[in-house]
Amino acid sequence: MNISETIAAISTPLGEGGIAVIRISGEIAFRIIENIFYRDNSGKNKINVSELDSHSIHFGYILEIDSLIDEVLISIFKNPHSYTGEDVIEISSHGGVYISQKILDLILKSGAVHADPGEFTKRAFLNGRIDLAQAEAVADLIRSKTESAHSSSIKQLEGSLSEFVKKTRQDIINIVSLVELELDFAEEGLEFIKKEEIKTKITGLNERLKKIISSYISGKVIREGINLVIAGKPNSGKSSLFNYLLKTNRAIVSSIAGTTRDYIEENLIINGILFNLIDTAGLRHSSDDIESEGIKRSHAKIKESDLILYLIDSSQSPEEFKREIDEFKESGNLDKSLLVFSKSDLSKSESSFSGINISLLKDETIEQLKSEMTGRIMSDKIKLSSDEIILTNLRHRICLENVVLSLNDSLKTIEDGMSGEFISVDLRNSLKHLGEITGEVTNDEILNNIFRNFCIGK
Amino acid sequence: MNISETIAAISTPLGEGGIAVIRISGEIAFRIIENIFYRDNSGKNKINVSELDSHSIHFGYILEIDSLIDEVLISIFKNPHSYTGEDVIEISSHGGVYISQKILDLILKSGAVHADPGEFTKRAFLNGRIDLAQAEAVADLIRSKTESAHSSSIKQLEGSLSEFVKKTRQDIINIVSLVELELDFAEEGLEFIKKEEIKTKITGLNERLKKIISSYISGKVIREGINLVIAGKPNSGKSSLFNYLLKTNRAIVSSIAGTTRDYIEENLIINGILFNLIDTAGLRHSSDDIESEGIKRSHAKIKESDLILYLIDSSQSPEEFKREIDEFKESGNLDKSLLVFSKSDLSKSESSFSGINISLLKDETIEQLKSEMTGRIMSDKIKLSSDEIILTNLRHRICLENVVLSLNDSLKTIEDGMSGEFISVDLRNSLKHLGEITGEVTNDEILNNIFRNFCIGK
Repeated sequence: MNISETIAAISTPLGEGGIAVIRISGEIAFRIIENIFYRDNSGKNKINVSELDSHSIHFGYILEIDSLIDEVLISIFKNPHSYTGEDVIEISSHGGVYISQKILDLILKSGAVHADPGEFTKRAFLNGRIDLAQAEAVADLIRSKTESAHSSSIKQLEGSLSEFVKKTRQDIINIVSLVELELDFAEEGLEFIKKEEIKTKITGLNERLKKIISSYISGKVIREGINLVIAGKPNSGKSSLFNYLLKTNRAIVSSIAGTTRDYIEENLIINGILFNLIDTAGLRHSSDDIESEGIKRSHAKIKESDLILYLIDSSQSPEEFKREIDEFKESGNLDKSLLVFSKSDLSKSESSFSGINISLLKDETIEQLKSEMTGRIMSDKIKLSSDEIILTNLRHRICLENVVLSLNDSLKTIEDGMSGEFISVDLRNSLKHLGEITGEVTNDEILNNIFRNFCIGK
Repeated sequence: MNISETIAAISTPLGEGGIAVIRISGEIAFRIIENIFYRDNSGKNKINVSELDSHSIHFGYILEIDSLIDEVLISIFKNPHSYTGEDVIEISSHGGVYISQKILDLILKSGAVHADPGEFTKRAFLNGRIDLAQAEAVADLIRSKTESAHSSSIKQLEGSLSEFVKKTRQDIINIVSLVELELDFAEEGLEFIKKEEIKTKITGLNERLKKIISSYISGKVIREGINLVIAGKPNSGKSSLFNYLLKTNRAIVSSIAGTTRDYIEENLIINGILFNLIDTAGLRHSSDDIESEGIKRSHAKIKESDLILYLIDSSQSPEEFKREIDEFKESGNLDKSLLVFSKSDLSKSESSFSGINISLLKDETIEQLKSEMTGRIMSDKIKLSSDEIILTNLRHRICLENVVLSLNDSLKTIEDGMSGEFISVDLRNSLKHLGEITGEVTNDEILNNIFRNFCIGK
């Protein structure tokens, strides 16, 4: 990455809206705006940014040669007092895809390059405005769809994880110092700290780290939501339940088996938990090529899911009903399924196998289903309102796991009676992994992996 | 409408992006921001907007009681130097639907009301910042998707239509003055202007107006694009052509007749013209309920379309081929159809009826089809790069038509030898209709009709 280049991108979502914002950051940001922005629409009255205050807003016109592109407001941010720490211009244009794209094109023709995803935030990190964990929180914050996702990412942006890393780092450095100090005086036989005491300290740290690591499962739910697949035989009422939960007619419903071909996906929040609801083609052997393709995709979706609502039509004959339950038991998906007996108002069977009876005619049965759905998730020990740190990022989990591994190595080294040098190496390894979280230790590959998941313009 | 209320809305498009902008306008805009915005994240350091400059930007934190919602920038615009002419605050928050909604909710709880669509622009009009034709240009500008749509709406925003209205208004006022001056001196028998001269002037005006009115057809194309339906029998290659034109696999394609059920719609720009491309279910009698519903929808789409690509499979037997052409001739859609013979590489027939031969294996045949499509539109006398005013708004056309009618009335009144009073009434009527375009003459109903088509937040 070439930080000497000036970058530009549209920072607002694409679509029709009142305002679009185009952002420019870098050495020639001011020179570019001086060349395309005028205080009058005839293109005579230029501005000189050096005469204008940082954090000031100016009305004027973007012109390409003589042709007026838009009336805009520009905001000036002089380095280092900007998001990226560089000279920044933000142009507020009329909303709409065409016009903002046209302004961006003009900026790119004037010497800027198109920003990569997350490149503004990456520069904020590289220029020391924020650390890496905070940069990652920005992306999570933008993607947050629920109260819990928002509160975990804003906490991380404010530095809760960074604080924890800093504190843990200091604890390890204290131990390393003692170990290394002892090395310096080794010949004199001084012992500043007992080996047992070091072991106790390291074990304590490890416990704390493991607790944070275990929060990751809740974190994934918070960040990404639960992939919930509605599955079952044709005509078991999957699309009807899907529509009922969403309170729309999103899926075409008919009495004809095989109506749903392409799977349909919609988001739904129940009790603060985000569900990615997926309606699938009914499972059967079909000679219809298009339906078969749909069924193939159903199986793929079931495989990827976090939770399955498996529907069995309880209005069918008791023999069929029992056969379907037996089939389901053999499917290997028991662990992540809720068994649902649909059309319970028409039920002809009693099942010895426990399931949730629902009928779309009885709203209370659907409420019970919802509470079973969220209860199932909650029982996996998610504390949504917890004040503790919740890891929502796989990279952070891997770093912390590596810290634990290095600390375990150091414990083993001590137990093996090895000398201080070796203990020190293990401890310093753990410091390196900690530093990767906040970006004290980093490399291009890590950075590229992180920022390519950002949206453009951030 | 209560202009004393303070309004707020999210002004950027909904979706994930780097930045979202929430706008507040009205008397208590500053009081609201003083209550929710702090310079520190502990909620102690408030701001006092009266001490801050207009057009200045400030970094800080939005807090709801003690809970941090986001780090933001706020921009201050003091009346009358704002978009609406009122006190305005714009909050730049992190992008994303959840977070911007949460900030908006807090503002609404603090005493603002949610802005109606276009209400910021409506206030700009009511406060005399822009005229009505310019307000309408804002909406068109945001919706513009092509060069031609952009240039016609930016011209209108800059006042080209308003200028024309002003000039025409002055011309009519000059005539009215003469007519009415004559009335004052009627008893003295003075004649300032010959009746014939008045007639010539009015006729000249009418010619000019009619020319502008006739630009509306081009204007509609510029603004809304062409609704282009791809229709034909099952398996004539509609979805394949649709995908080919879009260069995607948007529609499921199979060799099975009746694959497409729901119609699919996508935009495509060819030679600067926007096409709303619609792929439909193949036309046939079907016993399949779902397919039948699809076919019903195909017929509705054909009815609404501006242009139809009617596909006939030329690989079928010459008898079938001829029968389909005959059927098509009787369909009543000839005038707005381009007849397309698909799969021309497998053609078994020669048609005496002219159509465009295409084969997806030969890109040049598709290029020819595209040029026939745009040629057909262009031949309806659209001048895309014209410097003349192009009417893109139905309301403006109706107003101008009413002006022409009133001027015609005045001509008739003159011809009937009626007295000056009656001529004056007709001419003043035409002035009223002219004034409706720019909003000198208006009422609540007109305003509501105009602004309800705006997006929220503008």
